[in-house]
Amino acid sequence: MSLRFTAQQVRGIYNIMPTPAVPGADRWDCEDSVDYDETVRIVNMLIENQVDAIMTNGTFGEGATLTEPEWRKFNETVIRTVNGRVPVFAGATTLNTRDTIRRSKELMEMGATGLFLGRPMWQEMDEDAIVGYYSDVAEALPDAPIILYDNPEAFKGKITPRTYARLAKIPNIIAAKYISVSAQYLADVAAVGDNIVLMPMDSDWYYAWKWAPDKAKAIWTGSGNCGMAPLLVLKKAIESGDEELAKQVTLDLRDAYSTLFPKGNFHDFSIYNIQLEKIRFNAAGLVNAGPARPPYNRISEEYAEGARLVGRKYAALQEKYSKML
Amino acid sequence: MSLRFTAQQVRGIYNIMPTPAVPGADRWDCEDSVDYDETVRIVNMLIENQVDAIMTNGTFGEGATLTEPEWRKFNETVIRTVNGRVPVFAGATTLNTRDTIRRSKELMEMGATGLFLGRPMWQEMDEDAIVGYYSDVAEALPDAPIILYDNPEAFKGKITPRTYARLAKIPNIIAAKYISVSAQYLADVAAVGDNIVLMPMDSDWYYAWKWAPDKAKAIWTGSGNCGMAPLLVLKKAIESGDEELAKQVTLDLRDAYSTLFPKGNFHDFSIYNIQLEKIRFNAAGLVNAGPARPPYNRISEEYAEGARLVGRKYAALQEKYSKML
Amino acid sequence: MSLRFTAQQVRGIYNIMPTPAVPGADRWDCEDSVDYDETVRIVNMLIENQVDAIMTNGTFGEGATLTEPEWRKFNETVIRTVNGRVPVFAGATTLNTRDTIRRSKELMEMGATGLFLGRPMWQEMDEDAIVGYYSDVAEALPDAPIILYDNPEAFKGKITPRTYARLAKIPNIIAAKYISVSAQYLADVAAVGDNIVLMPMDSDWYYAWKWAPDKAKAIWTGSGNCGMAPLLVLKKAIESGDEELAKQVTLDLRDAYSTLFPKGNFHDFSIYNIQLEKIRFNAAGLVNAGPARPPYNRISEEYAEGARLVGRKYAALQEKYSKML
Amino acid sequence: MSLRFTAQQVRGIYNIMPTPAVPGADRWDCEDSVDYDETVRIVNMLIENQVDAIMTNGTFGEGATLTEPEWRKFNETVIRTVNGRVPVFAGATTLNTRDTIRRSKELMEMGATGLFLGRPMWQEMDEDAIVGYYSDVAEALPDAPIILYDNPEAFKGKITPRTYARLAKIPNIIAAKYISVSAQYLADVAAVGDNIVLMPMDSDWYYAWKWAPDKAKAIWTGSGNCGMAPLLVLKKAIESGDEELAKQVTLDLRDAYSTLFPKGNFHDFSIYNIQLEKIRFNAAGLVNAGPARPPYNRISEEYAEGARLVGRKYAALQEKYSKML
Repeated sequence: MSLRFTAQQVRGIYNIMPTPAVPGADRWDCEDSVDYDETVRIVNMLIENQVDAIMTNGTFGEGATLTEPEWRKFNETVIRTVNGRVPVFAGATTLNTRDTIRRSKELMEMGATGLFLGRPMWQEMDEDAIVGYYSDVAEALPDAPIILYDNPEAFKGKITPRTYARLAKIPNIIAAKYISVSAQYLADVAAVGDNIVLMPMDSDWYYAWKWAPDKAKAIWTGSGNCGMAPLLVLKKAIESGDEELAKQVTLDLRDAYSTLFPKGNFHDFSIYNIQLEKIRFNAAGLVNAGPARPPYNRISEEYAEGARLVGRKYAALQEKYSKML
Repeated sequence: MSLRFTAQQVRGIYNIMPTPAVPGADRWDCEDSVDYDETVRIVNMLIENQVDAIMTNGTFGEGATLTEPEWRKFNETVIRTVNGRVPVFAGATTLNTRDTIRRSKELMEMGATGLFLGRPMWQEMDEDAIVGYYSDVAEALPDAPIILYDNPEAFKGKITPRTYARLAKIPNIIAAKYISVSAQYLADVAAVGDNIVLMPMDSDWYYAWKWAPDKAKAIWTGSGNCGMAPLLVLKKAIESGDEELAKQVTLDLRDAYSTLFPKGNFHDFSIYNIQLEKIRFNAAGLVNAGPARPPYNRISEEYAEGARLVGRKYAALQEKYSKML
Repeated sequence: MSLRFTAQQVRGIYNIMPTPAVPGADRWDCEDSVDYDETVRIVNMLIENQVDAIMTNGTFGEGATLTEPEWRKFNETVIRTVNGRVPVFAGATTLNTRDTIRRSKELMEMGATGLFLGRPMWQEMDEDAIVGYYSDVAEALPDAPIILYDNPEAFKGKITPRTYARLAKIPNIIAAKYISVSAQYLADVAAVGDNIVLMPMDSDWYYAWKWAPDKAKAIWTGSGNCGMAPLLVLKKAIESGDEELAKQVTLDLRDAYSTLFPKGNFHDFSIYNIQLEKIRFNAAGLVNAGPARPPYNRISEEYAEGARLVGRKYAALQEKYSKML
Repeated sequence: MSLRFTAQQVRGIYNIMPTPAVPGADRWDCEDSVDYDETVRIVNMLIENQVDAIMTNGTFGEGATLTEPEWRKFNETVIRTVNGRVPVFAGATTLNTRDTIRRSKELMEMGATGLFLGRPMWQEMDEDAIVGYYSDVAEALPDAPIILYDNPEAFKGKITPRTYARLAKIPNIIAAKYISVSAQYLADVAAVGDNIVLMPMDSDWYYAWKWAPDKAKAIWTGSGNCGMAPLLVLKKAIESGDEELAKQVTLDLRDAYSTLFPKGNFHDFSIYNIQLEKIRFNAAGLVNAGPARPPYNRISEEYAEGARLVGRKYAALQEKYSKML
């Protein structure tokens, strides 16, 4: 069997959408928490604004806190609405291999382009466990492309270059949602070659491209939910080699993000990742992501205000860069 | 509504049983991995050997890696077999509040005495999130007693004394499966008063009792799966104030456990917790826990041999202490 | 050659004295920062109040921030004032082996009973380096007894049981200033046997004694600088087997110490160890430790106030327990 | 008073030389461990091969393990041999502010261009302590330029962007020996502006230059001790904008360094930093750095062999790039 989508096709802006929530979705007794109408609206908005691919159900996409029926109906809604216009990589990270495989099969039958998969996180996994887990999924779904999810806080450890080298031999793995660009990025890029596209986040794209221009073909972002304009300008700048412009957008993004991270580090951000991202999406004004689902439904007003500020600053960037499209 | 079981009733040896697995249960394509006959046999063996309570589906009880149908049928089997002879605290830790509540309701309807609940672990939780999560469960199941599960590796952080003080105000929480006894144990005991019984593990019981004789009323253990005799002798020694004997059993247990922890620390143990515990249970010869389920189904031969040695040494203790009953 | 003092002689209350500082000692341009008159006064006060031994120049004793001439004159003053009335273990931790040996020889020639030695901390040391370092000192000073200093924050890592087992074969090492009592204490006690007396801090003495009554013969403390009475009552209670009283003093000490640790943990305390201890000594009113020397001469008012409160609460205990002597 | 050397003058290759050791220098009873003849020879070799500046007595320069007389005579030898041909930044990191100031004054009187200063490391320092420490030194030596030493392992914590912003207001601080280039580098560069030149290590130069071409004006390295040729080619490539060549040298350097880091991370390297660097210098064949001084004089053969391999691979690069000069 051949893969539905390959590493060579991974290009551009991969936006992770939220799972919009109805009022009351932050309560334990909410029965169906998903706002399906808003789901349709967000999908259409992203595609109309030239997103390159849509991803679902990572961390802020609340893969962990949907019930299984909600998860099913939400992804069906996304995939049916997309209707082949762009690739969809849907999330099926669970607490174990077998549940992930079962859900992955459902997603592929629904028409997903591929999977967006973190790893079980009750026990930390060593290298053999990580490789074994992804190998098992690949064996069970030989034609399913996988974007792996490399989040050291959620999954208890950064994937090492040596593990990346082993993962790069699993043909299904075509890309990775990547953490910040540093010396390890260079080692990881060397380890995966052209088999896996390491996707930095939007504000790191320029920097990854400066170091590895032929490798930095795609990014992940959640900022498309706040407006695609800055991302589209950045993409065009990078693809046309306009360094000056690429750097300007990047510095604008970094300035907008400056209050997103409580205490300025990723660890503290990771404790409130979902809450902070939904708050900033809502503050930017384009989507209604609704409240965060339990148990990740509480946050201090101070941290919330930092995230709201990011949303408002990004909205100003959206206006600024819309004029350049 | 009043609780089915109270903190005042928590006494003695709370043994966590494994979820026995059939051959092939370590593969991703296994459909029903539970050995139900062995489940019945283990329950009966534990009760006949005077266990004080049975717990299910923590870490090595593979709460994370059962499918939902397996989880349901396994707990039904346990509860029906116990048939009220001893209390049963059944595990329902999931990735979110609502799934845990739904599963918890099922367990209470099956006839469980109470719940054994860790917390969702995709995002680390701060104090408000921890208290909010357990409060939500308590609000949803007002008559369900809860043994909380305090495992800093699985759930990304030790519960602090300040958080314990807040949790102690939730009437449902009657006990906690506790990590090793140290200065923090004293602070935690002070924080919870008589509202929550902090249950140390078997080899710490003597030491907890020396420090807080009126608080160390119960322990958690998995060693009952390798033989109840050393634990029963230890319990009798502590209840009768026989320090000499209590210490002797404790030193024997510690000696037996000395090769269980790879590299000698809890962090490295936690990466292989399930595998190591199932291997030692199988090596002791009384139960057939079967293989570990994916993705936690791989381990180096060196670490496995350390666990096997623990099982064999414990079997010798079982023989030694059986004569003293 | 035979040791001047052996592990069998290590008993009771080993109090670490501050290095009293003159006004202005917190400035970089202070030339001789030591208050020698107050040094004499503190030594005499401690001995008159039945301290069992005096230690100098660990962390809060500012071994790191004295100039060499100050260090020399201060220790000469201490040793001359003690004049054989109690043992003196003087500090000579430096950045390297040779300087420590040179200073250690000076101390022994001055008449110190023995040495109080942490390890160089520019590079973290592995097991071989730790054992090699203490072996070198022992080889250079074959008749000098050593109290080793086991502080995981200052010296970048806790000494492991395996390393303790190797250190226990160096005859010079007779005791260790020990961190808080936990499961590792038991392993460390087992590793050192009767060769090294692991000295817990005052508020852990009762707990160490409950676990290992024949091993917990001595403690380290800085609280003697705030008044010896509670410590003397505790010592008498433990030596006479009066559990009730020992526990009461312990709970009083723990209550008094409760605001000493910023954020409640040892890591954050260790960033301000010197400042916090000097502030509490001064607040208790018996000694004038003066300001802390640079670069450890800054602290927030909030943390300072926590330490002052400890000093005031301890002073009340001093009054309370003085009546029981 | 005006500074002897300014941030604007910091350019090119700043090589840290070892402190060459005589046979037996790894023993505790060695009295004068410095090979002064080899010191002269290394200084001349570096200058003849176009080093831009010489630095002394950081970590592998054994600032921690020289006796004070050795430190004095070694730095006198270096400064006298250099004789103004290139700038010299000499190390005076000690355990406290006053000793560092006293030694710094000596160095400036000897004719050093400036100082190379880490911070005291017995206690971890918070932001106020770090700023206070460097401010004190600057106040004491108003005309002394300072290269600060930012090593998170040696000095217990990375300097944060906020602290860098404060340090950038101290006119004396003109440069920083910097750790690996990552997202934090960008934040740090933004924080210091043109006041402090953040000097990456040689193999990061290309990457820093790609991100911040007008900021990456100088590097620190120890590889000049193994041969200046690859570094000179790299410098010329970067200064002339020859990306292709700069990248090729960089990949060659990275390949040569690949076995330098035990277990592949900086933490484990930092435990053997001195030993590993001296072994690789000796293996490259140009200098005789001699053995490492105690207590950092032990290392496993496996790690040593990794460092030797680096030296041999670098020697091959030296030969290769010599032809391009």
